[in-house]
Amino acid sequence: MLAEACGQPSYTRRTVFRFDVEARDGRARAGRLETPHGVVETPIFMPVGTAGAVKAMTGHELERVGARILLANTYHLMLRPGEALVADLGGLHGFTGWPGPFLTDSGGYQVFSLSQLRRLDEQGVRFRSHIDGSAHLLTPERSIEIQMQLGADIIMAFDECPPFPAPREAVADATARTARWAARSRAAHTRKDQWLFGIVQGGVHEDLRIRSAEGLMKLDFPGYAIGGLSVGEPKCDRDRVLESLDPILPEAKPRYLMGVGTPADLLEGVARGVDMFDCVLPTRNARNGQMFTSQGRLVIRNRRFREDPRPPDPDCGCYTCRTASRAYLRHLHMAREITAAILMTIHNLAFYLDTLRHVRETIRSGCFEDYRCRMTRIFAAPVATDPRDDDPTGS
Amino acid sequence: MLAEACGQPSYTRRTVFRFDVEARDGRARAGRLETPHGVVETPIFMPVGTAGAVKAMTGHELERVGARILLANTYHLMLRPGEALVADLGGLHGFTGWPGPFLTDSGGYQVFSLSQLRRLDEQGVRFRSHIDGSAHLLTPERSIEIQMQLGADIIMAFDECPPFPAPREAVADATARTARWAARSRAAHTRKDQWLFGIVQGGVHEDLRIRSAEGLMKLDFPGYAIGGLSVGEPKCDRDRVLESLDPILPEAKPRYLMGVGTPADLLEGVARGVDMFDCVLPTRNARNGQMFTSQGRLVIRNRRFREDPRPPDPDCGCYTCRTASRAYLRHLHMAREITAAILMTIHNLAFYLDTLRHVRETIRSGCFEDYRCRMTRIFAAPVATDPRDDDPTGS
Repeated sequence: MLAEACGQPSYTRRTVFRFDVEARDGRARAGRLETPHGVVETPIFMPVGTAGAVKAMTGHELERVGARILLANTYHLMLRPGEALVADLGGLHGFTGWPGPFLTDSGGYQVFSLSQLRRLDEQGVRFRSHIDGSAHLLTPERSIEIQMQLGADIIMAFDECPPFPAPREAVADATARTARWAARSRAAHTRKDQWLFGIVQGGVHEDLRIRSAEGLMKLDFPGYAIGGLSVGEPKCDRDRVLESLDPILPEAKPRYLMGVGTPADLLEGVARGVDMFDCVLPTRNARNGQMFTSQGRLVIRNRRFREDPRPPDPDCGCYTCRTASRAYLRHLHMAREITAAILMTIHNLAFYLDTLRHVRETIRSGCFEDYRCRMTRIFAAPVATDPRDDDPTGS
Repeated sequence: MLAEACGQPSYTRRTVFRFDVEARDGRARAGRLETPHGVVETPIFMPVGTAGAVKAMTGHELERVGARILLANTYHLMLRPGEALVADLGGLHGFTGWPGPFLTDSGGYQVFSLSQLRRLDEQGVRFRSHIDGSAHLLTPERSIEIQMQLGADIIMAFDECPPFPAPREAVADATARTARWAARSRAAHTRKDQWLFGIVQGGVHEDLRIRSAEGLMKLDFPGYAIGGLSVGEPKCDRDRVLESLDPILPEAKPRYLMGVGTPADLLEGVARGVDMFDCVLPTRNARNGQMFTSQGRLVIRNRRFREDPRPPDPDCGCYTCRTASRAYLRHLHMAREITAAILMTIHNLAFYLDTLRHVRETIRSGCFEDYRCRMTRIFAAPVATDPRDDDPTGS
């Protein structure tokens, strides 16, 4: 009361977005993204909470590993439990209890990768649910409507993501349609407490990418996603596309590389001006027994870990590395214990988030290139292939 | 250094066991069990960590829900990863990282419920592993040897648990063999930092039960388990057996009712002088979407929870009840998310452990009977059967 009387409200719900690039090292940028649900230091990795939960994690564990912003999938949530239910229960924040910012994708990518009987025309995409076969239509307007109901802090324009490889003409058509759908997405979006990002398409063709980015920039989105990469193209093509977009995309706005990738991919993206990443790799690989460490990848079922008392990553301070040995994790994984998935997911997410913390620190201290070179060598090490690792019986 | 110079070692590893009954209310007892890995207030419920992990839990979450002592299964651990590996990595405590006490069973019960091609004679039981079909022999000496290698604080004599129903003669034979095997178990046990409990058998026959208990008491075990209940017998038979044993078993020693049970079963056991319980119900049911609450059982897939914003149990303060709605848990369960298993396991264990905390408090304050009557009425309520609950499609 006193504070308010002094003209300083004791509590102000922040609805103003802001993004500032605060430091640069080469093309790499360290920034600060303010959202209605909190501040995110960039570059950042967003754990994927497909159906409103990051698999094998609780919100508490996500906070403990340093997660700041989560991604949720519009496609999955529109089918189950439905966006109306999520909205009724307070949007993604109220429904899941996650206090920090959310980002939702547009649903377009999943329609093409998961659903059945797709049919695409200028209006949108008709498809059948992979869950129960029910018929649905997703258009730019409908995707934005759903995303407004879900209530994430950052939402995505509805795009068409062509496969790789695809004929140049098909990619050009998809890119042109993505531009038209971006304008329709922009027109359909009315929530002031959400940021809507446009998505650059164009496959591996630099001229299409630049045309796509320039078209979106006329719509003046507050941020730009780079879609259609990490779909099977060579890494050199991805790097080339990012390098072609870096001087085109507005310096002052966040850039989000969708669906990427390994720790090494993240470093390459940061080195080419990317601020935001998401990927299922750390969580999915954890459930399959593969851990990312500061010494390279570790496949826990390998027989040589059977009696290994060391933590997964001696340089990691996460709960798993503080409390569990490789031998224990291997045992739990072989016994198909859920606890194995939990512990390895904790580590992999901590490793990703710690890596990006180091990235931010080294950008600010001007030694990102040293860090990137050193870590890239480590990450490039092939999965350990000790002869004793061949243990098909899993005994 | 200074403290040691003064004759007060700065750190003393406790290896002395102790059990004291500190309060009584009717036949119910509140006590204190000291073990090399910490003190346990009784009556206590021990979460089941079959393969060295409580399913869907980390050690951190177990501590947060108030777990004090865990059970691990000798049968599972001898088969995978093998007791020698566990011993090499510091026993169950070193292997799992759980800092509190452990109890292991003898393996006998699982041999009969899980393994294939069993053959029992006076020496022991030959069986084939349910994992890979390998042949094994479990005898009293071998069970104790394995349990000494696993290194739990409390271990069990090797017993024969007859099925229910079984002819009285078969139960009498099994009970007599259990007595002989108890003596062999006792003779084989040499670790001073473990307590070995005898197991009372005798089915639903009070005279066999009493004979079994009196036989074991001649061996002067530091604690007595009551086995062979919760195998399908009517609850009134179980109550009768417990009532017949209460005046026979030594007052000053802990009593452990194996494999029991529902929250109501625990209250009935406490009311008949039992101090320790274990059961897979809270963890297994959680994974199947069934929660124990202060308002009765809750089957989360029921359609009426679809939009229910309330926590699973409004009277519970666990992480799940503080952060998740019934609607959110139902959604995660229907989507087969691991996080559903985690959150519901947290609640069910918290509910069991809180119930026993209330039990201890009400015994000490002399109002256990009131508490038991009140809770028994609630627990006896059938699983909710709202007409809308019939939702076979799971939509």
